[in-house]
Amino acid sequence: MKAEIITIGDEILLGQTIDTNSAWLGLKLSEIGISVYQKTAISDDENHILTALKEAHHRADLIIVTGGLGPTKDDITKHTLVKYFNTELIINDEVLQNITAFFKLRGREMTDINIQQAALPKNCIVLKNKRGSAAGMWFEVGGKVYISMPGVPYEMIGIMQDFGLEKIKSHFKTPNIVYKMIYTIGVGESFLAETIEEWENKLRAEGLKLAYLPAPGMVKLRVTYEHDNKELAEKMVQEKIDEVLPLINEHVYSLHNDKIEHVVGDLLLKLGKTLSTAESCTGGNIAHLITSVPGASSYYMGSVLSYSNDVKIAELNVDPADIEKYGAVSEQVVTQLAKGSLAKFSTDYSIATTGIAGPTGGSDEKPIGTIWIAVASKKGVKTELFKLGNNRSRNIQVASLMALNMLRKELATAEKKQL
Amino acid sequence: MKAEIITIGDEILLGQTIDTNSAWLGLKLSEIGISVYQKTAISDDENHILTALKEAHHRADLIIVTGGLGPTKDDITKHTLVKYFNTELIINDEVLQNITAFFKLRGREMTDINIQQAALPKNCIVLKNKRGSAAGMWFEVGGKVYISMPGVPYEMIGIMQDFGLEKIKSHFKTPNIVYKMIYTIGVGESFLAETIEEWENKLRAEGLKLAYLPAPGMVKLRVTYEHDNKELAEKMVQEKIDEVLPLINEHVYSLHNDKIEHVVGDLLLKLGKTLSTAESCTGGNIAHLITSVPGASSYYMGSVLSYSNDVKIAELNVDPADIEKYGAVSEQVVTQLAKGSLAKFSTDYSIATTGIAGPTGGSDEKPIGTIWIAVASKKGVKTELFKLGNNRSRNIQVASLMALNMLRKELATAEKKQL
Repeated sequence: MKAEIITIGDEILLGQTIDTNSAWLGLKLSEIGISVYQKTAISDDENHILTALKEAHHRADLIIVTGGLGPTKDDITKHTLVKYFNTELIINDEVLQNITAFFKLRGREMTDINIQQAALPKNCIVLKNKRGSAAGMWFEVGGKVYISMPGVPYEMIGIMQDFGLEKIKSHFKTPNIVYKMIYTIGVGESFLAETIEEWENKLRAEGLKLAYLPAPGMVKLRVTYEHDNKELAEKMVQEKIDEVLPLINEHVYSLHNDKIEHVVGDLLLKLGKTLSTAESCTGGNIAHLITSVPGASSYYMGSVLSYSNDVKIAELNVDPADIEKYGAVSEQVVTQLAKGSLAKFSTDYSIATTGIAGPTGGSDEKPIGTIWIAVASKKGVKTELFKLGNNRSRNIQVASLMALNMLRKELATAEKKQL
Repeated sequence: MKAEIITIGDEILLGQTIDTNSAWLGLKLSEIGISVYQKTAISDDENHILTALKEAHHRADLIIVTGGLGPTKDDITKHTLVKYFNTELIINDEVLQNITAFFKLRGREMTDINIQQAALPKNCIVLKNKRGSAAGMWFEVGGKVYISMPGVPYEMIGIMQDFGLEKIKSHFKTPNIVYKMIYTIGVGESFLAETIEEWENKLRAEGLKLAYLPAPGMVKLRVTYEHDNKELAEKMVQEKIDEVLPLINEHVYSLHNDKIEHVVGDLLLKLGKTLSTAESCTGGNIAHLITSVPGASSYYMGSVLSYSNDVKIAELNVDPADIEKYGAVSEQVVTQLAKGSLAKFSTDYSIATTGIAGPTGGSDEKPIGTIWIAVASKKGVKTELFKLGNNRSRNIQVASLMALNMLRKELATAEKKQL
């Protein structure tokens, strides 16, 4: 049972629109046990569409087409489907009523172009579009299923959620694909691979799959198993996860949530603790990540962004003599920044950063990418030195994640003690 | 001259990663006059990769492959290319040196897996990867060009910008396509389209092209002209830009730089002025944008992130009676935040925000998306009320851009007076 997704539209090929539809469809199909074999993006061109449909017919059992159903001249998907299935267009009364109601609700005049949107291929089953005027269409031809939907994400998602996914589930006897994630941080993909090599070999030999999904500073691991017996598949994947966790535990920040700022927020909420930050080189990005979480205002008090030394001294009580002696990028200064933030905002925890993000400002002793991070609580201050690369935005991004991870470790320890 | 982009990776098919690479490539290729005929996303499977390469060979002249070049077992693109081109792997000394230097800089141990990343197909020309250990590869086979690059966007973009795009331009005799951009902010696409309709019709009649590229809060306009005579094309495009600017000038923040934080930074540098910020609802995102610009430390002094009312009062001198009377989200409070920041950091300008980012905290009087922004200088405070939508991350993003745009207008006025 394989699916293929065909995305039609010049704006996708030109890169003016990022194709989020096919990602959404991939996620939803994998959840009901259908694997997407291929995604193909093509232009609004009849021959190209016909060729893509023919090729997909050979590769896949389910072909989902999005795009090209609008009312304007460059939308040719419907007419091309009529040609492909060798059928004809007829006005569908139910869809016409739907369109009429849609326009009435919005107080807009219906034109002949809009009425023509109710003309559908004779051989299709309608998948109602509650959010727009272009209906979804379901075709069963030659043992294969074709679905055609508008490219507007809001409408496509509506059609699938309201009707499409259920109809796919009941039509196909889909296999069970079970997968679980392990989210790691602060460790490279190759180091991780060597650490778990033996486990990985055994896993593959037993028919499971493992994927490494790297992102800056992080690697996600995905363990997958396909089996008719869903319970058995769940058990199998869980066993593998349980086996590997002891090997990599210190690098794992979650098994459920890919955003470390959410993990940290949940821990702070659970422990009833508050947080403040004093950022220098990360320039507000840690604050931005923390406050991207809805409800952060209940544990996050505020931050002083001390980009200049004057601010470090006046606002965060850093000793000017230490800046003179050790430099602003030093363990001494980052420690005082963290303590200063803790005191100023009267919080339980604080994070501080100071470093050379680049592209200039480096020296032999302290090259670009040298970044000190501190996490303070009433129990004391933990500091760590990171040696990152030459890219400013990446340094800011990675240092922010490393800082949140240092806090996460402190909170996890506190949580264990509480239990 | 057609191009095809092949994206390799189960995470793309599963929808766990949104394919931004192929969009970026589509944009960059269109800028040098190469149209992308098809985009194909496939799994990390040898037979599937071989089939996709063969099919692309028949359709396209340039085949760009991303993904599957990591050091782990599920990365099989390199070995599959060896099979496809019927060649062998040999260690490339230059790439090995590059990888060795890369690990040395980061103070990390090199493993055998890392050394194997320097083993490349014998028939490839290396496109150096300055940002990672997986080299880009260029192949010329059967009159077609193949490029293989890692899937990490940061590395892929680096390889293309450093070497790939120039090499494509010089290999293929690409037509002269001249384009210029107009970057607008704070105005919708359809309003913009109506304002410039007449100009656009004339432009199209004369054989030029216009593209609207919308992003949250912004619309980029791209005027393109293809002509053998580069000078004439340049002149033609410039004339059109000069014609349209008077119609939309108040919304244009740059003709050269798509990042408003760079535009603001340049103006501050030029005027020799300093900046501080006092953010509430934008949660550090304005600071993050400002400090993403290299050299920001010469004009940006710092910020107080006043997420709690206590911090607003204690650190930024907001009158508690005004918070009580008007609420934290009010013109009175945002004015005091901006003045407080100006005074605390002794800067020439300051930006302040306070609002309801969502998803909770709204009321009938002040629904989610209600955001007050102020820009202060010694001459006074300008405030503006924005009514945005329900989406937290979008509200933070758009409010940050609007705040920077308010500052930009002030700085532009100051610049005019100075001239």
